[in-house]
Amino acid sequence: MSRPGLDQGPGDGPLAIICGGGSLPFVVADAVQRRGRRVVLFAVRGWADPQRVAAYSHHWSTLGRFGRFCRVAREEGCREVVFIGVLMRPKLSQIGLDLGTLKVFPKIITAFRGGDDHMLTSFARIFEQHGFRLRGAHEVAPEILVGEGPLGRYGASARDEADIARGLALIEAAGHFDVGQATVVADGHVLAIEAAEGTDQMLARVAELRRLRRVQMPHGVGVLIKAPKPGQDRRFDLPAIGPQTIAGVARAGLAGLAVVAGETIVAEPQAVAVAADRDKIFVVGVRGHGGAG
Amino acid sequence: MSRPGLDQGPGDGPLAIICGGGSLPFVVADAVQRRGRRVVLFAVRGWADPQRVAAYSHHWSTLGRFGRFCRVAREEGCREVVFIGVLMRPKLSQIGLDLGTLKVFPKIITAFRGGDDHMLTSFARIFEQHGFRLRGAHEVAPEILVGEGPLGRYGASARDEADIARGLALIEAAGHFDVGQATVVADGHVLAIEAAEGTDQMLARVAELRRLRRVQMPHGVGVLIKAPKPGQDRRFDLPAIGPQTIAGVARAGLAGLAVVAGETIVAEPQAVAVAADRDKIFVVGVRGHGGAG
Repeated sequence: MSRPGLDQGPGDGPLAIICGGGSLPFVVADAVQRRGRRVVLFAVRGWADPQRVAAYSHHWSTLGRFGRFCRVAREEGCREVVFIGVLMRPKLSQIGLDLGTLKVFPKIITAFRGGDDHMLTSFARIFEQHGFRLRGAHEVAPEILVGEGPLGRYGASARDEADIARGLALIEAAGHFDVGQATVVADGHVLAIEAAEGTDQMLARVAELRRLRRVQMPHGVGVLIKAPKPGQDRRFDLPAIGPQTIAGVARAGLAGLAVVAGETIVAEPQAVAVAADRDKIFVVGVRGHGGAG
Repeated sequence: MSRPGLDQGPGDGPLAIICGGGSLPFVVADAVQRRGRRVVLFAVRGWADPQRVAAYSHHWSTLGRFGRFCRVAREEGCREVVFIGVLMRPKLSQIGLDLGTLKVFPKIITAFRGGDDHMLTSFARIFEQHGFRLRGAHEVAPEILVGEGPLGRYGASARDEADIARGLALIEAAGHFDVGQATVVADGHVLAIEAAEGTDQMLARVAELRRLRRVQMPHGVGVLIKAPKPGQDRRFDLPAIGPQTIAGVARAGLAGLAVVAGETIVAEPQAVAVAADRDKIFVVGVRGHGGAG
């Protein structure tokens, strides 16, 4: 049996994209294809969007079918893998184990015990032990990352900059607990910290607190700050923004949002800039705390 | 004009209770009265419950009428003040300033700029400069505090204890940002951190994440941990639990809740124990991180 992928240098050959929910997998796939590289989607059943998956060379699978993934990916000539898209922590009983998975089972059990970062890093190690190189979306398509400075027409005020600094410091402090990729800070006050609920729901909560007048700061005060957790494995789960983030920031009555330049994926940057300008919201890439790998 | 309060020693004379929303002011007032001390409620219009206030010696006021408060409290013979109950950060324009307030206005503006703790500590200093001693609810009625150990029939498992330790550490870390008096930790994973939304809403969020299967841990895994922020002025805003906290913990599918012994008010301890036992939920007072004043 030929294993063409194993004879190619890093960065060559088709890229396997293990594809969860949301639009990010397709943003990455498109960017990689524009660079002239072939992609093969391994769409995770129940999460990946079937209509969008159909437009690419693809295979359907469940998360648990690791043995099958290894075989098919090798047949396709892939030796690099990107793991991207929404994928909630599955129940062990729902994974659908195959033989190849059972062999690495003790490692997976261990991976499930720790926090998310621990789990993801363990997965990465398992892939690498089977001859695949795990890549981050930022490595295979750096043009999808937010750069330094404003993305649209508006910029951050001095008060916004103070809120951004406070938010970044809080994310760093909370991140040691494997939590908190985002926070909302308004005039020095932390209005919300994200944990399991996700950024969109956190923004909806701030909007609701404002509506109920439990937050009484004027409209246009406050910033959404998103940053990778310190020590987070950047090959998984880089923070991402898209047009729906702008909509959430606008509904929450904030001045804008700040992300870490070079460590945040922006889906549809043009649409983000247009939406931000229309809603008079700033989007800015800032330098992070730099503590992470 | 006689100022009887000013001639008495600390702890003597009637106690002025500046009374915000919720039931805690009455829990404190009842406990103080049971000790044979007179209370005078200064009920904050728009927040304090008029029906319950009516059962006590009281005066209505707005937050801004500091000059009037000083005069009336002195006439009543009060020289100690407790400040308790829900009181959202008001808009400056809604406070309704009087002359005595205008005199301390620059200090109040300063107080509004910082985080909550900063604001509260500044308020305390202003009271003290006008001859009043600010007391914490825990000083005037220590019997309303949670003691060490379980409150009801159930106790924490070893896994719960690990979650409790992690939650306390997170509250300490986040507390340096003047945020996060509570968190939910389940088998090492931080599911939620409280900011401006309050504990009840945070618990409702965890219940919803479970309902949507975005948190897939089994029912009965996870702990609500509440603790004062490090450095929090204990004379304001001690964490509090009551029967509704138990109801929220039960709906969120958690095993129980942990609070810091000696630094948490329990409204209706009997009702809390009965509700916890009925829902098979543990309530435990633990030692805090001890970093706070």
